[in-house]
Amino acid sequence: MGYEKSVDFHFEIIHTSKKSAARVGRIHTPHGIIDTPNFVAVGTNGTVKSLDSATLQDIGLQLMFCNTYHLILQPGVETIKQAGGLHHFMNRQLPIITDSGGFQVFSLAYGSVADELKGRGTKKQGGSVLKITEEGVVFRSYRDGSLIHLTPESSIAAQKGLGADIIIPFDELPPYHIDPSSLENSLERTHRWEKRSLDAHLDSRQGQAMYAVIHGGPNLTLREKSCDYLTKLPFDGFAIGGSMGKTKEEMYAILSHTLPRLPKEKPNHLLGIGDLSSIARGIPLGIDTFDSSYPTRAARHAIILTEAGPLNISKSIYANQFAPIDPSCTCFTCRTFHAAYLHHLFKAKELTFMTLATIHNIHFMVEFMNAYRHHILQDLI
Amino acid sequence: MGYEKSVDFHFEIIHTSKKSAARVGRIHTPHGIIDTPNFVAVGTNGTVKSLDSATLQDIGLQLMFCNTYHLILQPGVETIKQAGGLHHFMNRQLPIITDSGGFQVFSLAYGSVADELKGRGTKKQGGSVLKITEEGVVFRSYRDGSLIHLTPESSIAAQKGLGADIIIPFDELPPYHIDPSSLENSLERTHRWEKRSLDAHLDSRQGQAMYAVIHGGPNLTLREKSCDYLTKLPFDGFAIGGSMGKTKEEMYAILSHTLPRLPKEKPNHLLGIGDLSSIARGIPLGIDTFDSSYPTRAARHAIILTEAGPLNISKSIYANQFAPIDPSCTCFTCRTFHAAYLHHLFKAKELTFMTLATIHNIHFMVEFMNAYRHHILQDLI
Repeated sequence: MGYEKSVDFHFEIIHTSKKSAARVGRIHTPHGIIDTPNFVAVGTNGTVKSLDSATLQDIGLQLMFCNTYHLILQPGVETIKQAGGLHHFMNRQLPIITDSGGFQVFSLAYGSVADELKGRGTKKQGGSVLKITEEGVVFRSYRDGSLIHLTPESSIAAQKGLGADIIIPFDELPPYHIDPSSLENSLERTHRWEKRSLDAHLDSRQGQAMYAVIHGGPNLTLREKSCDYLTKLPFDGFAIGGSMGKTKEEMYAILSHTLPRLPKEKPNHLLGIGDLSSIARGIPLGIDTFDSSYPTRAARHAIILTEAGPLNISKSIYANQFAPIDPSCTCFTCRTFHAAYLHHLFKAKELTFMTLATIHNIHFMVEFMNAYRHHILQDLI
Repeated sequence: MGYEKSVDFHFEIIHTSKKSAARVGRIHTPHGIIDTPNFVAVGTNGTVKSLDSATLQDIGLQLMFCNTYHLILQPGVETIKQAGGLHHFMNRQLPIITDSGGFQVFSLAYGSVADELKGRGTKKQGGSVLKITEEGVVFRSYRDGSLIHLTPESSIAAQKGLGADIIIPFDELPPYHIDPSSLENSLERTHRWEKRSLDAHLDSRQGQAMYAVIHGGPNLTLREKSCDYLTKLPFDGFAIGGSMGKTKEEMYAILSHTLPRLPKEKPNHLLGIGDLSSIARGIPLGIDTFDSSYPTRAARHAIILTEAGPLNISKSIYANQFAPIDPSCTCFTCRTFHAAYLHHLFKAKELTFMTLATIHNIHFMVEFMNAYRHHILQDLI
């Protein structure tokens, strides 16, 4: 089946820095260890775009994030259950985390969540979300027009079917432009939904761990309230979600306020944020894992991550660079091809470019996080 | 540099069938052996779409076809020369064949060559070809608007810069709807251009082999004339090009008339045709190599080649097939993933599908041709 029950989920702290709240740990899961801090690659539809499971594992990427909303719509949970779970379906041996579907459903209701979180959103596509009640959300499938009820219980049932190692309770993602009392009401509803999700989960743990999602938007008092409520419940870890403000400084203020209120002995995760500067700010605060589609999306747009910073391989200076992008890089792409060839493949709009650039960027993230762990072990961070 | 000169190009016939003109041979090139009959994958821009060189070589694909026209425009011959030739540029250790650029240039003049060859063409994009004279063709680059002169001499200079193991003389591809005397005039010009190409090539062989292109369209007398003229010149092999008629029967008639007129001791190639039924018809006539983008293009459109015939993986019958597409197939895709996952990836429009399907289809062609060679050795064909 999708996961073995031989190893119970647990978190082991190897070292906490003398210089900050940064820590090195190991999350033990039924599908192996996640060294922390670590980067989590996004594979929305059950694949990291342009890579296959074997390539992804060869790179050493330990945790992959799949989206329940997308998998409910295609291929459907029933198919993945029949395959023996998501691990079997995509032939992945290493750990997987799934979300609840809430993020995408509320994006439908309030427009792009990315826009919304930055305060740019308006209700763009509200049409396909038909009803939001205390029970949950009813929306229409963009694939076949069928009605789908997403509730705490149905989200958890779906995530049981998918069989990821770490699952997420169903939460409400309020719009950014919301008055303070509505935000508080939304937080209270999210807490009730998370509690219902946890109850549904504990009815049949199936070796899975569940991380709560701390909400409260940019309001520090509500963030505190969310920590107070959720840390009293028997979650296995804590994710930080919802609006993190418009700027890196606001995000930093929210995280600085939130992290100390989470139990140190449990792992935490920063939802949907994993650009390099946010990682640099988050690690000293004690964040354990970061998921983001940035490195893979950037790769498909010619942005190659290097220790000297991101570079744009489409620039003409690379047209005749007959050397690897980064001579010290040990990824398959850099060991095999010169920058000039990658530049050409991008210019010629070849799909091969997508794969080679994605391999490099994911490998970069794996090495980048490995270097962070070494630095923390030496109390340099 | 792009190729080593340690091995001179030569063709070795291992066995000719007692039942037909089918033969098993080995083409020795500076980059290794091509077992014949064989399939040649098309990698227009210096990559087989969605695959990298290492993956292609792992599959065992011995000969790759690159298009001079596309490479002249992007990245330009000068860049590939600086890289040390196409093999170094794309990091390919196995043989490469390039064409002259003529096919694409005359497609610009007369509309899609594929349409034209089937008699559907009209002058669609004639605008970018500015002049066709005895000297050659002048056209405008669709990339930067610059004027490009393609002549027998400039095509061969470009192909010397690319450094493929087998190169092709510059030829004229007449429109399908052409009156008999114009077709004969075109053939004579093509012969003059091929002779000029050969002279330019022999000035500096650089270890490369040159295959003539037999023309004459659907006119058998002209095909005969083309064989008579070109086989007297010191070409290393013979490609069959130009219009092959509208139907498989017409193609078969042309090939039946042409093949016996080619010297048995030299290798031959059927240009741009490599679907399974054409291969089945061509091999008993003695064709050695076939290039076609069919297996790779089909893959990207969900068509998976199997011994039982092509199947369409997008069909819902595969949605829950938790077994490889072909349990006897030894390709990476079939060894690693079930049909249900491939179906899902296609439905979810994931790039990963393109790569996995292409791996399977190329591997299928490699095995398919290997089986043909075994059958010929046993005089079964």
